[in-house]
Amino acid sequence: MSDKQIKESYENSSKRMSGQDSTIGSKINDSNDPNMHKDLNDKINIDYTKIKKSPESMEEVHKWQRDHVAKGDQSKEGYPLNVIIDPAMREMYQVVHNASMTNVFDRFSQQQPIQCKFCVEGLSCQLCANGPCRISEKVPRGTCGVDAHTMVARNFMYRHVTIGTSANIFHCHQAARALKAAGENPESGFKIRDAEKLKKYSAIAGLDINMPIEKLAVAFADWVINDIHSPSETPSKTVEAFAPQKRKELWRKLNLLPGGGYSEIAYAQTRCMTNFTSDPVEFLLNAVKLGIANEYQGLYLLCIIQEILMGTQKITMKKQNMGLLKDNMINIITNGHMPLLANVALDLASTDEWQQKAKAAGADGMQILGHVCEGQQLINYDGTHNQKAYGGQEGEWLSEEYLLATGVVDLFLFDYNCTMPTLPIYAKKFGTKLLGTHDVIKLQGTESLDFIPEKMKEQAIKALDISIESFKQRKKEKRKTYIPPHVSDCMVGFSTESVKEALGGSFKPLIDQIVKGNIRGIATIVGCTTARYGQGGSNIFKITQGLIKNNILVLSGGCTSSVMEYTGLTNPEAADECGEGLKTVCKQLGIPPVLTYGACVDIGKMSQTAVEIADELNIDTNMLPIVIGAPEYLEQKAVADACTAIALGWLVHIAPVPSITGSDVVVKTLTETTETLGLGKVVVEMDAQKTIQIYVDHIEKKRKALGI
Amino acid sequence: MSDKQIKESYENSSKRMSGQDSTIGSKINDSNDPNMHKDLNDKINIDYTKIKKSPESMEEVHKWQRDHVAKGDQSKEGYPLNVIIDPAMREMYQVVHNASMTNVFDRFSQQQPIQCKFCVEGLSCQLCANGPCRISEKVPRGTCGVDAHTMVARNFMYRHVTIGTSANIFHCHQAARALKAAGENPESGFKIRDAEKLKKYSAIAGLDINMPIEKLAVAFADWVINDIHSPSETPSKTVEAFAPQKRKELWRKLNLLPGGGYSEIAYAQTRCMTNFTSDPVEFLLNAVKLGIANEYQGLYLLCIIQEILMGTQKITMKKQNMGLLKDNMINIITNGHMPLLANVALDLASTDEWQQKAKAAGADGMQILGHVCEGQQLINYDGTHNQKAYGGQEGEWLSEEYLLATGVVDLFLFDYNCTMPTLPIYAKKFGTKLLGTHDVIKLQGTESLDFIPEKMKEQAIKALDISIESFKQRKKEKRKTYIPPHVSDCMVGFSTESVKEALGGSFKPLIDQIVKGNIRGIATIVGCTTARYGQGGSNIFKITQGLIKNNILVLSGGCTSSVMEYTGLTNPEAADECGEGLKTVCKQLGIPPVLTYGACVDIGKMSQTAVEIADELNIDTNMLPIVIGAPEYLEQKAVADACTAIALGWLVHIAPVPSITGSDVVVKTLTETTETLGLGKVVVEMDAQKTIQIYVDHIEKKRKALGI
Repeated sequence: MSDKQIKESYENSSKRMSGQDSTIGSKINDSNDPNMHKDLNDKINIDYTKIKKSPESMEEVHKWQRDHVAKGDQSKEGYPLNVIIDPAMREMYQVVHNASMTNVFDRFSQQQPIQCKFCVEGLSCQLCANGPCRISEKVPRGTCGVDAHTMVARNFMYRHVTIGTSANIFHCHQAARALKAAGENPESGFKIRDAEKLKKYSAIAGLDINMPIEKLAVAFADWVINDIHSPSETPSKTVEAFAPQKRKELWRKLNLLPGGGYSEIAYAQTRCMTNFTSDPVEFLLNAVKLGIANEYQGLYLLCIIQEILMGTQKITMKKQNMGLLKDNMINIITNGHMPLLANVALDLASTDEWQQKAKAAGADGMQILGHVCEGQQLINYDGTHNQKAYGGQEGEWLSEEYLLATGVVDLFLFDYNCTMPTLPIYAKKFGTKLLGTHDVIKLQGTESLDFIPEKMKEQAIKALDISIESFKQRKKEKRKTYIPPHVSDCMVGFSTESVKEALGGSFKPLIDQIVKGNIRGIATIVGCTTARYGQGGSNIFKITQGLIKNNILVLSGGCTSSVMEYTGLTNPEAADECGEGLKTVCKQLGIPPVLTYGACVDIGKMSQTAVEIADELNIDTNMLPIVIGAPEYLEQKAVADACTAIALGWLVHIAPVPSITGSDVVVKTLTETTETLGLGKVVVEMDAQKTIQIYVDHIEKKRKALGI
Repeated sequence: MSDKQIKESYENSSKRMSGQDSTIGSKINDSNDPNMHKDLNDKINIDYTKIKKSPESMEEVHKWQRDHVAKGDQSKEGYPLNVIIDPAMREMYQVVHNASMTNVFDRFSQQQPIQCKFCVEGLSCQLCANGPCRISEKVPRGTCGVDAHTMVARNFMYRHVTIGTSANIFHCHQAARALKAAGENPESGFKIRDAEKLKKYSAIAGLDINMPIEKLAVAFADWVINDIHSPSETPSKTVEAFAPQKRKELWRKLNLLPGGGYSEIAYAQTRCMTNFTSDPVEFLLNAVKLGIANEYQGLYLLCIIQEILMGTQKITMKKQNMGLLKDNMINIITNGHMPLLANVALDLASTDEWQQKAKAAGADGMQILGHVCEGQQLINYDGTHNQKAYGGQEGEWLSEEYLLATGVVDLFLFDYNCTMPTLPIYAKKFGTKLLGTHDVIKLQGTESLDFIPEKMKEQAIKALDISIESFKQRKKEKRKTYIPPHVSDCMVGFSTESVKEALGGSFKPLIDQIVKGNIRGIATIVGCTTARYGQGGSNIFKITQGLIKNNILVLSGGCTSSVMEYTGLTNPEAADECGEGLKTVCKQLGIPPVLTYGACVDIGKMSQTAVEIADELNIDTNMLPIVIGAPEYLEQKAVADACTAIALGWLVHIAPVPSITGSDVVVKTLTETTETLGLGKVVVEMDAQKTIQIYVDHIEKKRKALGI
């Protein structure tokens, strides 16, 4: 678009969202959610004085957490306080629940009596107007003739895999646009912080790296954007450039090599139409193919591009949880997965100019804290976690509503999932200003900025200005607030490069430890947390405890990292909870047994680490002694990521049970057949102890095959 | 891909699907549907002697149809024979039902007692692992916090609109690949039959048309493929080139102008993730934006490209229904929406060489008949319906299983939807050979060809060879067969150009008749048929009867055209059933009151006709006295097409009730608010008489606004 078009588009959008355009805005506002207003009736009475507090010291908290999950009582009785183990969330849940405000744990309870068995098993279809149809023993086909296997496999692909793949590739696409802006426009606010990385990956892509770094940024960004947008019949250049050789050979043989990701998504979606593809195995193989695009046109490259822009990870100690909020600071939370505006805002807020502005408004200063995966990225990147205005990491997605209930969040920036639909209710009640930073995400009645990478600095200024006004309003209204005092110390900043650097420049020392058996293998514990009985972070915690006891090194990413942080597992002191071998290694290196790689999208970095280890050993990726775990997976990106792991030949443990149990063919294909083709496979297990044993057995099987 | 890659890919795929590759094929076959075999147990006993026959002459059939629907009894009692009005389908249903074979009407009955109220209203969500969730008065939010409005709007977009849009753009993408092959490779089998059309649209696209026609074909195809694959942030060139000026201004104002279609689909899918966009109106506006891409990167251009390849329509008399099958002919049915292989096969089969081959096999000859929308295309194109081997049109999608039950279908080619999942069962029972012609569609245990446009001729030869072998097998086994004797005469071949040509080169005579009031307005009756009570073609038939009585000219496309054909409404004699004004016009021109434009995808041609009429009148499209009706819409493309019509400013009638009634906000936005923005709107009405009145009222309102 031309500058003029960009400006117009920006103005139109702002107008529309703020309702200034009477033709459109008012009509849209008319349509807004009546529930939102109903939820905000005057009966809501916030009382911070009746909280049953968590222990004050983190030492006591950690002890309580361990005792509590060891008891194993996380069932319906006493839910959700028997499930929530984050000390801050425990306190804030009580505030919200006592005020009868809608919140995620209470909503989970309310849904239980009305959950549908057909939907749970994947045996319900709502695609066409002859339906909705449900399949049972007595009624084995939908109206169109679809059987249980086709219905389950098709639901799996269109509800989960195509959406998740879309989202990860979309993310990479936006990151590439930002990199392009960094190269083209000094006013964009973006910086090229890791030029060497840009050169390294541009060279692999086959680009001429002997050009000015700004031009190279544009060329590499274009190369990525073009591959994402190439036709499905054109083999992907990013897959060709970055995927392991042996995997590519297998994928070619199985006809799984994708073309351009967006074209592949539309292709897959097309197949999901009524009376279209009806071979269940075809859907599952297509899902694996999407998993390959999900990796190389999504996770893998978005991680590299974000590191180029925000700095590659550095290992360091940082802090987490709500105790980092300060009543007399301007508290800005940035939430989501794509800290493109956030990192520009952080650069600005770290200047004396903006700190002075904050002080002029009566604050002690201005701090930006990350939440959810965006926070896990900011806490890891060298170029963000060292910034003066950086305030630390908040929590996982489940704590979002409770976080706003502290009353001290002045601005909540969000760019992507996971941003809960109820936040406008909380924002209104607790005086938080909500601001979307990409037009892809719109909440009811909430302002949102168009994503214009060329003008990111201008948009960041707008956001910071809003935060100051919001803080002034909070102080003017003398609103009551409460900040749970809990803060965890954690070691962060792990990635392929930083781990290698810590090991002295090569993965060989790590491999030696694996060969020796001090480290039996590696498990990645990634993904989300759920509100389910026995979960809410607990399943992640329990499994991880078991793995490190069994000398399995754990990499975490996503909301699992928050859990690792508030349970102390990312603290080097957690070495004491390991088996002897892993303990020795951790103590020697001064690292914790859980290395947080950051966000769920940083799975792209984990797979990169794994591939580099496989290359060092000169083996195919499926021979590595590793397991991928998503013990509390929630959403569609997690399912797409599982398909990536299957493509790479790995065992993927997931819980809760996905909605595929209505078809034995689908279950068998994903949990058995794919492995026989040289791909990975899925294992579903809800019990933490059994899960640990599955990981251990798989790793020992792989060790045996390697002769170690 | 290189030639070698294409060859390898082709061989691998064939091997895989035929199970020759023991590593892959056997594993996939292992996973195949047990129901399929269960359904094929020996108890199935086909008896053609007990059919209660339809009247023999079409005159009597038409009388019976009119008497029957006038009675208005199409309820559960006596279902489905009280619903089916196609004389051939009535007979074949009995054969299948008496043999207790699974079939679409019986499956609809079986689903009724277990249909889910939540799903019917759009109030069930299966996206994430905290669910599935259902919304009711007592439980107003899903676990994530989503309310009824967001849930309904999001379900609407991701289940229907993104899938339908994907499919139409995918179709256009494949047609463009075929056009490119036609230009690049004389061995492809494709012909450029309408070079003038190619030049005309290339010129509008801004291409230099002073190059050899083959080169222009490649250039135009590339231009289309590139636009489909451009990023969402790049405004679409096809929309810019082909959309009406006044509409583009409105769409720009409303921020609805799409970029590249596939990128837009991924963008929309991304928004549908859990904890992502939660503004219901945003989803609905996004759906309209997709509707614009659906038209200009889908329907509109795919129609033009297919006409370039297969010849623009010519008005002529042709025949329809199962009576066209011949016991001693090799009967090839080609089914779907994308007759790319079919038209090459038709060229070949029309040669003496192939007719001789058929005779050598003991047949009287070889004929290719179209079914579903593919058939409506073949019956319309000048380059296909005049071919020697062309055998006519079979029927609508509901009759697919019944068609195979005749026992005389030797080869059933399918390329796209609508191909029912149960066909492998029927194929096995009745000796039909099934063959997919595009790797996008795979049925259980069924062979499928990769789509390689460069080698279409080679693939067509393979298909014809298979049909000969299949015929020989049928004769060798002396299988019992039955062909219902019914055949309709119908006038076909209507399109923007052929109508204009019939009118003497301009739409002015038609406009004059509209101004005079002999024709009050135009209704397009398009889309599918459903198996529902009161539908099965009857709703289409009843509404159309009422419209023509009210002097409203009807254009049909899709399975509605089959209904118009077997009820006699596409026969010029149907002029007698019109009101006086329309009757006079029809008699004068020798045309029926229902002009079949062909397939459901030929909506692209209808909108083109409407735009040309609007241009002639120098008015915006939303001022035209027209209504879009889909009185028995079935699937996702129909929903995407409805979004196109909303974008173009038209009233869209749909039945049955779509699954949006769980949200008054969504219902209000789609049925009221959009119109106030200058867009069209939806009206939902199940009763045929009320529907007719809605159309009449809307057309009279538009006439009044135009001062006519």
